[in-house]
Amino acid sequence: MIRVAIIGITGYAGVETARLVLNHPDYELTYAGGKSFAGRKLSDIYTNLRGITDIKCEEPNVDKIAAVADVAVTALPHGASMDFTVALVKKGLKVVDLSADFRYDNLGTYKKTYKLEHISPEINAQAVYGIPELFREKIKNATVVANPGCYPTCSVLGFAPLLKNKLIDPKTIIIDAASGVSGAGRKTELEYSFCECTENFLAYKVASHRHTSEIEEQFSSLYNQKIKLTFTPHLVPMKRGMMTTIYANLTSSKPASELIQMYKEFYKDEYFIRVMDEGVFPETKSVAGSNFVDIGLAVDQELNRVIVVSAIDNIGKGASGQAIQNLNLICGLDEKSGLTMSGLYL
Amino acid sequence: MIRVAIIGITGYAGVETARLVLNHPDYELTYAGGKSFAGRKLSDIYTNLRGITDIKCEEPNVDKIAAVADVAVTALPHGASMDFTVALVKKGLKVVDLSADFRYDNLGTYKKTYKLEHISPEINAQAVYGIPELFREKIKNATVVANPGCYPTCSVLGFAPLLKNKLIDPKTIIIDAASGVSGAGRKTELEYSFCECTENFLAYKVASHRHTSEIEEQFSSLYNQKIKLTFTPHLVPMKRGMMTTIYANLTSSKPASELIQMYKEFYKDEYFIRVMDEGVFPETKSVAGSNFVDIGLAVDQELNRVIVVSAIDNIGKGASGQAIQNLNLICGLDEKSGLTMSGLYL
Amino acid sequence: MIRVAIIGITGYAGVETARLVLNHPDYELTYAGGKSFAGRKLSDIYTNLRGITDIKCEEPNVDKIAAVADVAVTALPHGASMDFTVALVKKGLKVVDLSADFRYDNLGTYKKTYKLEHISPEINAQAVYGIPELFREKIKNATVVANPGCYPTCSVLGFAPLLKNKLIDPKTIIIDAASGVSGAGRKTELEYSFCECTENFLAYKVASHRHTSEIEEQFSSLYNQKIKLTFTPHLVPMKRGMMTTIYANLTSSKPASELIQMYKEFYKDEYFIRVMDEGVFPETKSVAGSNFVDIGLAVDQELNRVIVVSAIDNIGKGASGQAIQNLNLICGLDEKSGLTMSGLYL
Amino acid sequence: MIRVAIIGITGYAGVETARLVLNHPDYELTYAGGKSFAGRKLSDIYTNLRGITDIKCEEPNVDKIAAVADVAVTALPHGASMDFTVALVKKGLKVVDLSADFRYDNLGTYKKTYKLEHISPEINAQAVYGIPELFREKIKNATVVANPGCYPTCSVLGFAPLLKNKLIDPKTIIIDAASGVSGAGRKTELEYSFCECTENFLAYKVASHRHTSEIEEQFSSLYNQKIKLTFTPHLVPMKRGMMTTIYANLTSSKPASELIQMYKEFYKDEYFIRVMDEGVFPETKSVAGSNFVDIGLAVDQELNRVIVVSAIDNIGKGASGQAIQNLNLICGLDEKSGLTMSGLYL
Repeated sequence: MIRVAIIGITGYAGVETARLVLNHPDYELTYAGGKSFAGRKLSDIYTNLRGITDIKCEEPNVDKIAAVADVAVTALPHGASMDFTVALVKKGLKVVDLSADFRYDNLGTYKKTYKLEHISPEINAQAVYGIPELFREKIKNATVVANPGCYPTCSVLGFAPLLKNKLIDPKTIIIDAASGVSGAGRKTELEYSFCECTENFLAYKVASHRHTSEIEEQFSSLYNQKIKLTFTPHLVPMKRGMMTTIYANLTSSKPASELIQMYKEFYKDEYFIRVMDEGVFPETKSVAGSNFVDIGLAVDQELNRVIVVSAIDNIGKGASGQAIQNLNLICGLDEKSGLTMSGLYL
Repeated sequence: MIRVAIIGITGYAGVETARLVLNHPDYELTYAGGKSFAGRKLSDIYTNLRGITDIKCEEPNVDKIAAVADVAVTALPHGASMDFTVALVKKGLKVVDLSADFRYDNLGTYKKTYKLEHISPEINAQAVYGIPELFREKIKNATVVANPGCYPTCSVLGFAPLLKNKLIDPKTIIIDAASGVSGAGRKTELEYSFCECTENFLAYKVASHRHTSEIEEQFSSLYNQKIKLTFTPHLVPMKRGMMTTIYANLTSSKPASELIQMYKEFYKDEYFIRVMDEGVFPETKSVAGSNFVDIGLAVDQELNRVIVVSAIDNIGKGASGQAIQNLNLICGLDEKSGLTMSGLYL
Repeated sequence: MIRVAIIGITGYAGVETARLVLNHPDYELTYAGGKSFAGRKLSDIYTNLRGITDIKCEEPNVDKIAAVADVAVTALPHGASMDFTVALVKKGLKVVDLSADFRYDNLGTYKKTYKLEHISPEINAQAVYGIPELFREKIKNATVVANPGCYPTCSVLGFAPLLKNKLIDPKTIIIDAASGVSGAGRKTELEYSFCECTENFLAYKVASHRHTSEIEEQFSSLYNQKIKLTFTPHLVPMKRGMMTTIYANLTSSKPASELIQMYKEFYKDEYFIRVMDEGVFPETKSVAGSNFVDIGLAVDQELNRVIVVSAIDNIGKGASGQAIQNLNLICGLDEKSGLTMSGLYL
Repeated sequence: MIRVAIIGITGYAGVETARLVLNHPDYELTYAGGKSFAGRKLSDIYTNLRGITDIKCEEPNVDKIAAVADVAVTALPHGASMDFTVALVKKGLKVVDLSADFRYDNLGTYKKTYKLEHISPEINAQAVYGIPELFREKIKNATVVANPGCYPTCSVLGFAPLLKNKLIDPKTIIIDAASGVSGAGRKTELEYSFCECTENFLAYKVASHRHTSEIEEQFSSLYNQKIKLTFTPHLVPMKRGMMTTIYANLTSSKPASELIQMYKEFYKDEYFIRVMDEGVFPETKSVAGSNFVDIGLAVDQELNRVIVVSAIDNIGKGASGQAIQNLNLICGLDEKSGLTMSGLYL
């Protein structure tokens, strides 16, 4: 059994990672780092875990982690995550980091976006952006995997085939996105209280969300040219689920059927990516609770514009599911291990 | 008291219109047309109306309606609405029609969109498209007001100032929209059942929704040039509420503050339109249960793209609220009468 | 116009009272007391009120309130409410108090329940418990009306006919209740966050909720004998709405039809109380957004046990609606004024 | 691999059983019986199963089932289930039946409750009521396991220790219950549509729900004396989850702590039953998506009344989870196999 430490375990991404580790045939959860709940059983905080684990949360301590774990998943706020990740790497651990701290090749963009100076450009340079469908081989050999943001995961996988094949005009890309409330994390802010969120839909951080720069860096890399795009997230009154609806003008006229065929070919070996037939579009309930990505597309013929719709579970493939997928890769396991359960639908 | 007949009263738009009529100082609900529930009290079907009205639904009959009502609101399916509206007009009634049957100037587009031959091009030619903020004077003198679709209302009011002032490139317009489930009507289809809808978000009728042609006709008219655009609706797990997020490239660089100022000027006499300050964006809960329209906007500076976000209650300003506003106008009343209650927020 | 001050206006009960006052034909909202948001427009906090009112919240000040208002509604936490109410009474204002501070005849029970010593037993002795359907005449002449708790309102109105007529065995009363989340107030506690509440149902404060003693005092008074009962509240993933399901053994065998007839007779002059026919039971959506109370009942024949189901909007009849009803009475207005709008259903 | 047929696979209980079978290490889903969707892929109907299974639904045929499956789970409407189960048993298959057809020892009660004459009193006499925690040994040897109703499962497991130990007065039992909407099945009835259910709570079939007689038969058996009780179900706006709050007078005074200790002892070997510490009560989100049962209890000291609160996932332990648990037993597998995943919490 590979011993896994999770630091920041009491956040939603942390505990979802814990749930997946606890259900995994090859992992053992040996360390539960959680400052605010130190000393308490994880199953007292997340009551679904009663009878599943008796592990107690503890104030995160690098030496202790290095002593009891082979690999670590850090699910801490940006900045704090960097400190722990670097310390753990120095102790010899491999780390999957769920923060934004190691996601950027360009640390200038990182600094501009997160207002933080990176403490280890060296380790950052070696970190691999953790979308296995695109960077599998690099991830296998990585010491630090930067687990991508939820919106970037959904956008990048949804648009990669068009970008790679240079089929769209990069100046026309618009991403209109929507997320369930768990994307905000386990927050006590009034705006995330039940009565404020239920029966409400809103746009937020219009043209100013920090995932924009992460998406742009990945899109630019896939297209091999600097891309700027417009990104608008919305908040949906549901727990889990994320959708991106991506628009761009096609460089030449193509029917939807041809593009769908190209997507199916592009992702033909990818277990977690389900490209839908023409006329069928994703619903978040099909992926909620799973690591799947559902992608559908249409072409607005008169305007020669492609519309790609992709859906993930924001804390599944958008966070913890993908973290396990990455962990599997760096541990030399089958990438799908512990992740083949379908979502619940209901 | 002005005597009002509602035909198709047991649908969601019908009963919401009834609720507003029953609470209105100048209207009396004298006829409740509803075939499927003929003979039953409206308050047995909509239990919120117990103690408020004892009116019974009846199989709609034109002669009877003409005998007991001064004006009528038709909330029937497309096609059926046309038949009743024409018959009622011939009996001398003024009608606010909630269907699509009288919304199009171009009956070719109507036929292409709704697969129906119009039975009265003459009456259609006299019908006025019922957005009071844009066509108030014409509505006052109309015999038939074509109450707009919910998505068109939200889109047209959200984008009219930019179109009228020709500030955007009309080939770049994309409308990404989302609606609460009541927009589908009172349906028994499985896809609208609770367990299928809750905790789910989806895109539907991508690039093929029939409101597209209605929006295009209005946008074209405002811009004074034929416009084609891309429209993608989504379904949100909530009862009421609608949002359109509209994108287009600006023809010349302008800061958001200048455009917001222009919007405030454009709508300065409009009670129901609330243009928000820079950095503030609408939430559907602010308008749910009311006839208000909330509009916010941002400019993506680097791409010189404007993003307008507008929110309405899909069965308020998007249907029944606007129907009352139109009814007030054709009856010579204060347009706001019976509509000044704020939404519930909670 | 009667000038109304609301103190504690930014809580859910406060703002719902404001909404009703703003829509009321005889009231003018002249004072908005709200410490935490002092200096900010109420409509910035509750965005549904944009365009409806420009009033600003201010740090509550008794002299200022006395200068600008004729009557006051206090919607403050227990204890704080007592201080303001007493000070306002001394300034000559009539007050409807939404806290528990003036609800108890027996201050020993109050102290035991709320851990507070009452600061004015004299004013408490004159305060009237504000259920108009039971204490209308006294309320008309009251200086302080103690607006009842939501669970007590729902329970007392649901069971009063059986208690008054001594048809049940008082040792067998069990109240099983459920409330929407707004009952907890505008809270930032994690347990009321969206992700923790949605898709969840729970029992809380089992046999220990402080509304129990309030219900017991009212039930005892109606039955004219000291009553102890069991009360279990549950939390429902919805905003508004409350239901009590009340059980007791009948002292003699009676069919449901006879009891329903008795209920209809008991409440025959009460506009806000809707007793349902046999076999029909309340749903919270029928009363949400209104001041109505829906009551249905059944008899378990074999066990000779009556089951009464009553439903209210917890912040309507359970708080702000009833506060307006009481305010109407102490101001000499028609009790129904400003409250005849039906709920939204949708 | 044991080959499993599911008949009635497109209902919610059917597809949840399929999901669990597909994720089970020892089962293979070899037959998907579903008349209304015959010829279609199961994953086209339940899109979460895309990529998980390609099985097609077919019109159920006993010979075909017997040819391809070792065991069967029937999830058909009452009556239809009886026909299939008997036919399958005659072909030599063991069956876990999710309907009510084999749940009653007393076929007179069955007939009275379901208005059906039983077609095989012999097979019914051999069928075992499928609550493994109470009837494990019998289930192991059963040919037909009658999978219990959701409310009975929740009630029986919640109250068994008190009944077995005769600690309560059996004439005072009241069960107040609440269920998520999936309990109604995959229905197109208007009352289960999203807009009718969301933000609504209601009592239904008050003192007349047919699960009452099933609960009474089990309670009577556990208490060894005929018991009549009052049962009131409510509908909660959520997908999954069920709670029963059970009241009865204690025969002698006992503190909650002593009863909790007794419960812990009673269930000490039961993996799926989690008895909570004093002062802690269940929430449905802790069990949703799992096979766990959470039980908390309190004593109303002054009235010497016990209040037991038990929670399950209505389609987990209340249907499909328990079906798998039973299937494991009749197949000689570890009862927990395929069921140890915790619920999702989020």
